[in-house]
Amino acid sequence: MSEDFRLHILGCGSAKPTLRHWPSAQMLTFRGRSYLIDCGEGCQWQIQRMGLGFSKIRAIFISHLHGDHCFGLPALLSTLSLLKRTEPLDVYGPAQLEEFLVPQLEFFRDSIAYEVRLHYVGTDRVERIFDDGLEVSTFPLEHRVPTCGYLFREPRPLPHLKRDMVIQYNIPEYARRKIKEGADWETPEGQVIPNAELTSPAEPPRAYAYCSDTRYLPQLAEQVKGVDTIYHEATYIEEHAESAHQRFHSTAREAALIAKAAGAKQLVIGHYSSRYKDGEAQLLAEAQAVFPNTILANEGLSVEI
Amino acid sequence: MSEDFRLHILGCGSAKPTLRHWPSAQMLTFRGRSYLIDCGEGCQWQIQRMGLGFSKIRAIFISHLHGDHCFGLPALLSTLSLLKRTEPLDVYGPAQLEEFLVPQLEFFRDSIAYEVRLHYVGTDRVERIFDDGLEVSTFPLEHRVPTCGYLFREPRPLPHLKRDMVIQYNIPEYARRKIKEGADWETPEGQVIPNAELTSPAEPPRAYAYCSDTRYLPQLAEQVKGVDTIYHEATYIEEHAESAHQRFHSTAREAALIAKAAGAKQLVIGHYSSRYKDGEAQLLAEAQAVFPNTILANEGLSVEI
Repeated sequence: MSEDFRLHILGCGSAKPTLRHWPSAQMLTFRGRSYLIDCGEGCQWQIQRMGLGFSKIRAIFISHLHGDHCFGLPALLSTLSLLKRTEPLDVYGPAQLEEFLVPQLEFFRDSIAYEVRLHYVGTDRVERIFDDGLEVSTFPLEHRVPTCGYLFREPRPLPHLKRDMVIQYNIPEYARRKIKEGADWETPEGQVIPNAELTSPAEPPRAYAYCSDTRYLPQLAEQVKGVDTIYHEATYIEEHAESAHQRFHSTAREAALIAKAAGAKQLVIGHYSSRYKDGEAQLLAEAQAVFPNTILANEGLSVEI
Repeated sequence: MSEDFRLHILGCGSAKPTLRHWPSAQMLTFRGRSYLIDCGEGCQWQIQRMGLGFSKIRAIFISHLHGDHCFGLPALLSTLSLLKRTEPLDVYGPAQLEEFLVPQLEFFRDSIAYEVRLHYVGTDRVERIFDDGLEVSTFPLEHRVPTCGYLFREPRPLPHLKRDMVIQYNIPEYARRKIKEGADWETPEGQVIPNAELTSPAEPPRAYAYCSDTRYLPQLAEQVKGVDTIYHEATYIEEHAESAHQRFHSTAREAALIAKAAGAKQLVIGHYSSRYKDGEAQLLAEAQAVFPNTILANEGLSVEI
């Protein structure tokens, strides 16, 4: 199985605007549907620029209600209506989402013609909040306002049917799906072949963890253990670790420590401070010193999970 | 005198997003200060891209509270605070500005550290609302929600001192400013030379009119009579005049009729419907057939008033 499960970076700057980056926004695509993660200003422009389209958006997940993670949301919701969306849209976020968004939904009620369903999530616990084929859980982060991360996991793939067993017992086509789903097989002679003999385990389900703005939380590694790709904010270089700690942000090295301890395959870093004018080479170097398979987020980047 | 009085186009598309244009936003610069007119999403990005800077923004004028004219406002206000603004900022707009903006100012109160002073303007009358050297008046427009236009006029320049009079009466440097301001001149012999003999009239003050979303209003020409540069929305070509009328928008030809009847020197058109995929050549041709000195707004365009 290799269904396309991809992460697209729409914006990876931090709050102070620069011409090099847009504020935080990402899109995850899986099985022809898309899932928006944070929604900084201009994210709808980036969605168009990357050719991702608006009609497949199934849900939006907001990590916290700082402007650089949500200012693009009202405009996006309005655009979906201009594009004739009728399907309801689920928007998840911490409880502060209500105070931010409800007055705007009310004000623009005549121009948003579909249902926006708000769901408030906790920021102090791991919790499964969504499952439409892609399973989404929250996990706690620690920032200056209530903030959570999101973990996206594909469904557990079905185990493989052993080819030699199929031949040996002459298992007909119609019965194979049931066996993959866990059934035993009874031969015409009444002999029961246990499922474990007929199947071999599938690959583990792929997963992506979005670790938004947060101070360095060593225990986070436990919560994103075994995830294939981790995005972790990396606002500062080590030299500015003091700024990071004061402002509840992380350094690139700290992001890499999480990825390493979690046993991730790949780390994507972003949310760069605007002070690093000549690019993010140093952030990358510091992260790669700890976790070699680190890449820099950049607008337009698209990676396979 | 030729103080720089310039119009900068930050966005000139309409509500449905395209990659060709950004939503409505303009900046007017005069005597080292800048004035923002409408504030569609992404306008702060355009301000940076055009190198206009944020620190000189003196006031913001919103024509109406459709999203494509105001979605960029909360993010911009937040950015000004990140950039350490402490000076109060005046924001003008129709009464609906309150419902749109006050809840957001309240929500982001901790991240907007300067005073935002809201001023609600009528949309059914001509009214002088602002004067800090640049004089600003509103005038009524007719759209689907309460909408006004804004007229910006520089102060009346001082008259010219006639060079031959200065020589003839040997008028000293220190007295010249007063004469420009209207004083007569008394010679050492006691002869009073009336001001009218000493000066010649200045050029008329330059003015710019922003005619935002509106159905075609022939009487508008009276209210923007003699203005140097008029911006007028031109959402549709003549073939789609029916759409224009139904949606309280104008065609390019109608925009040109206003500029012609007003005796303007220059017309800038914009707010193009997203349906004109291959550019705005037809809009321009239709406007120029009526008013030859028409130009197309475009992001990055900067014109002298």
